[in-house]
Parts: sequence; C-alpha cells; structure tokens
Amino acid sequence: MDRRLRLLQLDEADATPLYVQLARKLTSAIESGQWLAGEALPSERTLVETLGISRVTARNAMQVLDDQGAIRRTRGAGTFIAPKFEQRLSRLDNFSEMVRPHGLTPVSELIASARRLATDAERTALALGDGDEVIVVTRLRKADDMVISRDSSVLPASVLPAAERIGESLYAYLDRIDKPVLRALQHFRATVADAELAMQLDVPVGEPLLLVSRLGFTHNDVPVESTQTWCINDYYDFVIELRR
Amino acid sequence: MDRRLRLLQLDEADATPLYVQLARKLTSAIESGQWLAGEALPSERTLVETLGISRVTARNAMQVLDDQGAIRRTRGAGTFIAPKFEQRLSRLDNFSEMVRPHGLTPVSELIASARRLATDAERTALALGDGDEVIVVTRLRKADDMVISRDSSVLPASVLPAAERIGESLYAYLDRIDKPVLRALQHFRATVADAELAMQLDVPVGEPLLLVSRLGFTHNDVPVESTQTWCINDYYDFVIELRR
Repeated sequence: MDRRLRLLQLDEADATPLYVQLARKLTSAIESGQWLAGEALPSERTLVETLGISRVTARNAMQVLDDQGAIRRTRGAGTFIAPKFEQRLSRLDNFSEMVRPHGLTPVSELIASARRLATDAERTALALGDGDEVIVVTRLRKADDMVISRDSSVLPASVLPAAERIGESLYAYLDRIDKPVLRALQHFRATVADAELAMQLDVPVGEPLLLVSRLGFTHNDVPVESTQTWCINDYYDFVIELRR
Repeated sequence: MDRRLRLLQLDEADATPLYVQLARKLTSAIESGQWLAGEALPSERTLVETLGISRVTARNAMQVLDDQGAIRRTRGAGTFIAPKFEQRLSRLDNFSEMVRPHGLTPVSELIASARRLATDAERTALALGDGDEVIVVTRLRKADDMVISRDSSVLPASVLPAAERIGESLYAYLDRIDKPVLRALQHFRATVADAELAMQLDVPVGEPLLLVSRLGFTHNDVPVESTQTWCINDYYDFVIELRR
C-alpha cells in the first residue's frame, strides 16, 4: 500500500466519527505537503478499498474537504488538491508572479480578441475620444492545466494595435513599449457564472465568482488598460492587512 | 410636471434608441444629485404617463440602470437609488464611518446571538483552548432603512460575556474594554444568497454576495474577533489602489 494511504488508517476505537477522522488526516496530509497542489487525490473507491471504510464515510470526508475549498472536483480529471494563490493586496502582482512560487507553470490562453469602437464607458475609463478604437483580449489563465480565471482586457488600439502582440504577459508587453502599469485601481464584486463562463472555467452555472475590475495607469497617470477578471473562489485568496 | 421629470423629455428625432436616451438622462440626473441615494425613482407608470413613452421603453431603461448597479428594486419599497459605500481598503473603516458621510444613519439590528463551545476552526483562529466558549453575534446593517449587509461576529466569551454589551458598535465596545482592534486580516470571496440570507437581505435566492472574512487583533497581536460579512454588491464598492 502507498505509504501516504497507510498514514490515513482510521481508529475505530476513537469516538470521533470516521469521516471526520479521515477529513482531518487528509487535511493535515495536504497541509504538510504529502499531497501537492494540482496532484490527484485517491479516489473514493481507492479509499474504500485500502482503508476498509464505507463508501459513505469516504464521500462525507471528501465533502468536508470540498466545503473547505481544499480540493476541486472536475467532471473530467477527478479530484485534486486546489492550490491557493494568495494575493496580497498591498502590491500589484501579475499572474506569473502569483503562480510560479507554487512550482506551477502559468499559462495564458487567448480565447477571443476583437478590435472595435470604444463604448461610452470605455471612453470614460480610458480617456478616449469619439471614434477611438480599442482592442479587447479575452484570456483563460491556467496554472499547469488547471483553469483558475478568465480575464478580459480592453486597451486603446493606439497602445495595443493587435491582440497577438501581447504574448504571454500583457504587463511585459506594456513594459516593452514603455507604457508600464505603475498604479492600478481595483474594485471587487461578487458575480455568478453564466453558461459561457461555466463552460470556460469548468464550473457549474451559478457558481459564485469573484469579479475583479482593474484600471491600470502608466506615466503621467494616463489610463492604459481596463481588465475584468473572473476568479474561481477555490484558487484565490484575496487578503489584505488593515491597520487602524 | 415635476421639474426633474421634465428634464427627462426624450428627443424622438435623435437616432439613439429611446430607452438608451432615458437611461442616460436618468444616470446623469442621479450623478448630478437631482435624485439622491435612498430616494425613490419615478415608477415605470409615471415615466410612461409623463414622458409619453411606451412601457417597454421605460422598462428597458430601468433595466440598464439596474445592470449598472445604479438602482435597487425591492419587492416592497419600489425602485430607489442605490447609495455606493466606497470602502478604501487602505484603512480599517468601521460601518458607521462608512455610512455617515452619505448623510445616512447607520443602524445595527441584532438578529441572533448565542454562547457556545468554540469549534475547531474558531479555536485555531482565536487562539482558544479546549472547552473555551465564544459568543456569536449576528447583525443586519442598515443605512437608514436599507439593509446593506449581514454580519456574524465570533468573540471569545472572555472578551464579550454577553451579546447585548456591544450596543451599536462592536469596535467601540472593544475600545471601552481596552481591547481595540489595531490590525485586521481581511479575505474576500464570492458567494450566493441562500434562503435565509435572501430573506434577511431582501434579495433573490442565488444573488451573488461578496463575503468578507475578517480576523481582528488587539494589543500584542492577540486575536479578538472573527467576523464574516455578507455584502449586497450594489451598495459596496471595495476598492484598492495598488502600486508597482
């Protein structure tokens, strides 16, 4: 038997319900790094067979972990450990800087782009004039092969003439053309996945998502990007330290 | 005719769709302060009768405002202007400090309280021992008579022996007993209203809500309060300025 599974052996003599024992052992195995973020957990069937427990016990334990946001269940890939990307809201992190410290590879997948006239709201946000055009770039963000968010960035066409120029990192592109984002305003609200987001993020329709809206400013406080990011709760830990 | 309604007269000769014209006029009337936060908007019927527009035009314009989060529709009180409480995430604001600058009166309504053994998670968060008790206080937060959030605070019973001692402000109580919250960690995630939250906050079941979890520390970094706040999106504007 796998050494890690052996450590999950439950104590029938203990008064603590078996599923609680199992959930605690799995939690501490995850926290101590025996199972790593992105790794598959043993299936319910494996737990049942190797630990000699009932299917109900295995299922209840997994439900506890799911409720804690410690695991992610997907239709295709089974159950795996959810990495937690802590976003300290004291500085402007980019996606790559958030993912790499976890030993995962950041991947940006361009799923749509368009060049069109700026809307009223976009003209106001980006300080554009009548007839000015914008580029809209929609990307899926992944850590290895886990989709963790979708974002949609709007930039003046004068700043970004074509979506493909971005490459892996919008901020690196803006650095290259000497329009680095130096300051940003971020707003937070809750939303739920519609059919399109649900499909793209592999979550159920109606799943709560954190929507982060960011307006980025370059030299002389000129706005250069307006980005909306729909974040899967389980992967994100937006945290801020406040003082009185 | 009310002067404010007269200013909403639409221009049939303008190529802009009538509902877009009306939505823009209402938006600018709200932004310029002609209608104030918390005030009722004219009903669809009033708009139809005084502006000579169709019911569909009035309804579509209201939908635009609703989508922008500019208005709130309730089952009982009709449609009114949503105040926006900006929470600058750079400092620790309390509820009263957030509401008063809008000329509204902050109201805290105690809806439940209990004294019980701390759970595992509460013992960890609040650095409590086996057998230690906590007080759980659940309050609705209102600005005048608009419910804007519900929160649930957990404090060690040694800090708060009975819920009623809090009065209007938990932080003022903690100041009085010389356990002021000096530092706090706040986490953000999205959730949706279950049946209970929907009833208490007067929103539909499944409405997205921002859930803010705060752990407050007093002198010597001793944790004294763990609070979860379910915020109605329309009223809250959590914003943070980030620098690179």
